[in-house]
Amino acid sequence: MDSDFGTPRQLSDLQKLRSLYQPELPPCLQGTAVRVEFGDAAEAADLTDAHTISQFFPHTYGQPLAHFLRATAKVPDAQIITEHPAIRVGIVFCGRQSPGGHNVVWGLHNALKIHNPNSKLLGFLGGSEGLFAQKTLEITDEVLSCYKNQGGYDLLGRTKDQIRTTEQVNAALTACKDLKLDSLVIIGGVTSNTDAAQLAETFAEAKCPTKVVGVPVTLNGDLKNQFVETNVGFDTICKVNSQLISNMCTDALSAEKYYYFIRLMGRKHSHVALECTLQSHPNMVILGEEVSASKLTLFDLTNQICDAVQARAEQDKNHGVILLPEGLIESIPEVYALLKEIHSLLRQGVSVDKIHLQLSPWASALFEFLPPFIKKQILLHPESDDSAQLSQIETEKLLAHLVETEINKRQKAGTYKGKKFNAICHFFGYQARGSLPSKFDCDYAYVLGHICYHIVAAGLNGYLATLTNLKNPVNKWKCGAAPITAMMTVQRWSQHPSASSIGIPAIHPATVDLRGKAYELLRQNASRFLLDDLYRNPGPLQFEGPGADAKAVSLCVEDQDYMGRIKKLQEYLDKVRAIVKPGCSQDVLKAALSVMSSVTDVLSVMSSSGNQKSL
Amino acid sequence: MDSDFGTPRQLSDLQKLRSLYQPELPPCLQGTAVRVEFGDAAEAADLTDAHTISQFFPHTYGQPLAHFLRATAKVPDAQIITEHPAIRVGIVFCGRQSPGGHNVVWGLHNALKIHNPNSKLLGFLGGSEGLFAQKTLEITDEVLSCYKNQGGYDLLGRTKDQIRTTEQVNAALTACKDLKLDSLVIIGGVTSNTDAAQLAETFAEAKCPTKVVGVPVTLNGDLKNQFVETNVGFDTICKVNSQLISNMCTDALSAEKYYYFIRLMGRKHSHVALECTLQSHPNMVILGEEVSASKLTLFDLTNQICDAVQARAEQDKNHGVILLPEGLIESIPEVYALLKEIHSLLRQGVSVDKIHLQLSPWASALFEFLPPFIKKQILLHPESDDSAQLSQIETEKLLAHLVETEINKRQKAGTYKGKKFNAICHFFGYQARGSLPSKFDCDYAYVLGHICYHIVAAGLNGYLATLTNLKNPVNKWKCGAAPITAMMTVQRWSQHPSASSIGIPAIHPATVDLRGKAYELLRQNASRFLLDDLYRNPGPLQFEGPGADAKAVSLCVEDQDYMGRIKKLQEYLDKVRAIVKPGCSQDVLKAALSVMSSVTDVLSVMSSSGNQKSL
Repeated sequence: MDSDFGTPRQLSDLQKLRSLYQPELPPCLQGTAVRVEFGDAAEAADLTDAHTISQFFPHTYGQPLAHFLRATAKVPDAQIITEHPAIRVGIVFCGRQSPGGHNVVWGLHNALKIHNPNSKLLGFLGGSEGLFAQKTLEITDEVLSCYKNQGGYDLLGRTKDQIRTTEQVNAALTACKDLKLDSLVIIGGVTSNTDAAQLAETFAEAKCPTKVVGVPVTLNGDLKNQFVETNVGFDTICKVNSQLISNMCTDALSAEKYYYFIRLMGRKHSHVALECTLQSHPNMVILGEEVSASKLTLFDLTNQICDAVQARAEQDKNHGVILLPEGLIESIPEVYALLKEIHSLLRQGVSVDKIHLQLSPWASALFEFLPPFIKKQILLHPESDDSAQLSQIETEKLLAHLVETEINKRQKAGTYKGKKFNAICHFFGYQARGSLPSKFDCDYAYVLGHICYHIVAAGLNGYLATLTNLKNPVNKWKCGAAPITAMMTVQRWSQHPSASSIGIPAIHPATVDLRGKAYELLRQNASRFLLDDLYRNPGPLQFEGPGADAKAVSLCVEDQDYMGRIKKLQEYLDKVRAIVKPGCSQDVLKAALSVMSSVTDVLSVMSSSGNQKSL
Repeated sequence: MDSDFGTPRQLSDLQKLRSLYQPELPPCLQGTAVRVEFGDAAEAADLTDAHTISQFFPHTYGQPLAHFLRATAKVPDAQIITEHPAIRVGIVFCGRQSPGGHNVVWGLHNALKIHNPNSKLLGFLGGSEGLFAQKTLEITDEVLSCYKNQGGYDLLGRTKDQIRTTEQVNAALTACKDLKLDSLVIIGGVTSNTDAAQLAETFAEAKCPTKVVGVPVTLNGDLKNQFVETNVGFDTICKVNSQLISNMCTDALSAEKYYYFIRLMGRKHSHVALECTLQSHPNMVILGEEVSASKLTLFDLTNQICDAVQARAEQDKNHGVILLPEGLIESIPEVYALLKEIHSLLRQGVSVDKIHLQLSPWASALFEFLPPFIKKQILLHPESDDSAQLSQIETEKLLAHLVETEINKRQKAGTYKGKKFNAICHFFGYQARGSLPSKFDCDYAYVLGHICYHIVAAGLNGYLATLTNLKNPVNKWKCGAAPITAMMTVQRWSQHPSASSIGIPAIHPATVDLRGKAYELLRQNASRFLLDDLYRNPGPLQFEGPGADAKAVSLCVEDQDYMGRIKKLQEYLDKVRAIVKPGCSQDVLKAALSVMSSVTDVLSVMSSSGNQKSL
């Protein structure tokens, strides 16, 4: 199983050049001292969830935010750590490979060795299974040499996505104890970081000294909240996919006879599809979030695409490119309901060939209506997070098929007067996942690796390494750590009554914010993208010259830096405290009281009504 | 139809930078004089075909090779053209878009204007249909500005691949006369250049002054013969595909649970698959030419892949990447025979749903054995060149399905002991076709465009622009032109008795030479590629730094430069003539006679037995 992991690789010339690239560190991480400032206790965004979370995580909920500061920062109460005993850290890849993952390992290794050359970094071979089986590889400069800035997870490999069952958690606990780890770093997405938080709590409860640290690495870009702006891998995936989508656009425009239906990997939500649309300007994209919000049926979607095809045909355009996120299929209400029935029957042990006999009448009617290939795909067993096997369901073929049927009908009726409708279908995902990481992902991952060390040095448990202000250059990035429990919410309701997730706090994948700036940008341009063929080709991923330093559009348009603002607020409060301290004049005190009372009134009103708002 | 062609495009930063790239010209094309040297009459490689070809092409067969020389070349009988009247040239894209096509237009336009600013270049809008309808766009610097070094054919567009029927040829003749064209340049692959030769003959016969020039532009890389080393677009397609294949390899190695079956665009022959294998080192490739040569059946192929999967499983490797050319399906003897029956029935007008009733018993048995999706795909109408619709037949899914069935059988029998076999299928082609062209393709296409002008200036008709010695830097490239008829062969036999191509000379797509050096390189490494995971990632297409100047492996290993050697031989013969001229000594003459007589003896013997040899 692990025969190939961590072995030296034959690198191409470009790979060799990339392996020599040295990412920059933000000023606060330079030098050998760790300077950490703690903010207020971090609470869950939804205060109604807070109580449940604190019950599930008595040891790790309510911990403060941590900010790592530059050596010259004048903050009187920052904790400065200058002694660095040799420590032992374990690191494991969980979940799907995302470009840049290797650089987290490199960054952490580098930080460990800078602070104490006797510290050791052990990589678990074969993901969580390697953790349970205590299969390790000691990370050294030599081992890293042909994995720096390279794609894939083949330095250590990965297996299952879970560290969740009692057995798994106990195996992890035993491994950390046996290997005398001071810290365990888990690289992954929403599921793996939820598991990391659970592990941190269990370790604290069991008085195991190993601190658990999470790192946000997932190509889906859905580990997004007030503390996390983007995830390692998302930038690369969107750039590689956008290149391919743009090539399809150029191709469509050259022959003017095909409609390309492209489904994009990215799990339940549509972050990848939205970003790729903003980068390459295809004619159309249908986001799962739009479909959910408007409860659009399969027929609504078919008609919407047909109307677009017809509008283009009226302008003599018989070609086009349409993007569909892989999660779309679950957003269509009647298909979702059908999937729910199927999954419930599968869980009851009904065999696949008998399922259609036990569906409700209307679910059965929908099932019989679907083409055979889709029938087979939606009968697949659900994934561990209760979702359908999204990468296996060819939504693009289903929609192309329905659109073709409808266009032919319209042609006979005389309403569609364009050329014969020709659709060609694609699924982009696997071919991007193993890509060389973009410069941004190389930098982001490497710096996160360094932050992991600072978290461990500060003795924090159950934290996620965070970097904010990412749209600015590296020397402006703000380094910190947030308790994972503060990112959790509680699902109180599910269409799967048997779903194991109800009532249990977890990080849930973020949806595309339909009131956010990235989506607004899409809406502003959607009709021009549809009709005017404003195709834009960002080109193949470059490491030098224009485009090499480009960042995700959605990252740049959004006004994030929540961590920075929280810190700024704290500075104001500290200033108020410094000015209005015992001994200040009565007038100053009165003025402060008046203003503060009004501020608290306003904020109380806003936060009680603001709970429904997404962040 | 042509509403979008040639309009200004919004370029990304990288595209803008590329649009400023200026390809270099070889020394022989610099300056304003055209210096051309003619070689001997070029004959067809197979002398038994020569008679037929000369009958079909009385005006254009047997013309000499042309070499374009540098201004300083000391060749006494070179023709030097220094007067350049203003001329009118038409240019048309035929067949599938290949990256670099735009640069032929740019190169030709540049050469025309250098030699006479009053010359005009007219682009036909919408390919051959635009030619028939006389829809033109005058090419100017302004029009070109956002198409230089860009992918696609959207400057002019393209439609059908044919200029072949009497109607089409007459429409082309009328267009050239009406528009008073001195030359018509046709950009395309084997089919389009065969049409170009036919057009040249017809024009000569009709005393139409328009000279027809062909340019070898096809991503398939199958317009390959003693005069043509590679085609515009092939380099880019192989690089983009290799990047994606490498990403899949990295991905496979990270998760160690998938077999990726990847089918590659490239028409009947396996040039693209071979080159991509040499660039990215996947575990396995099955070339159509190997299957044809060894007459491997569907079951042979299934077993061959299963044996590979089993051998890898024995080394604890449960992942892999397997490449399949799209033309493979037609190389499998029993499938080919089935396709032949189906196409014949389709031609007889039998409706698709009735065909299975009229198949021969054994073809029917094979048909019934195939999974439904493949049945539907092989029932599609054949293409204009009598081949099946290769891009629509999912051979990768068929083989993955058969391999899975066989592996499960072996698992039950206890011979296969690896993990569960998981295949994921892909088709790569469309997503590469619209790519920004590589530096090589930019240069190659641009220089070919210049050569087109030199061909026209030399008054040649029915020639293909050629560049040889391509594996060396641009300043070593040799520029020439070869009569298209010399590249033709005559198919005297076909499995389709009704095939229109029998007995008619045409350029046939070159097969991968199983005795060539590129294939030898593959064979030498095949078993290591299979078992040792020597995956190599050339990375995304780069325009700066390492890899930017990389050339196709198959181009570099092959010992080509036929044109250069032909010229060298001529120089030797000239030298002999110069030394042994009337007045030389009796001894010199005797020595010359003796040597020459022996040389001619050896060569006669070799060329009479050598006709069967491939080139």
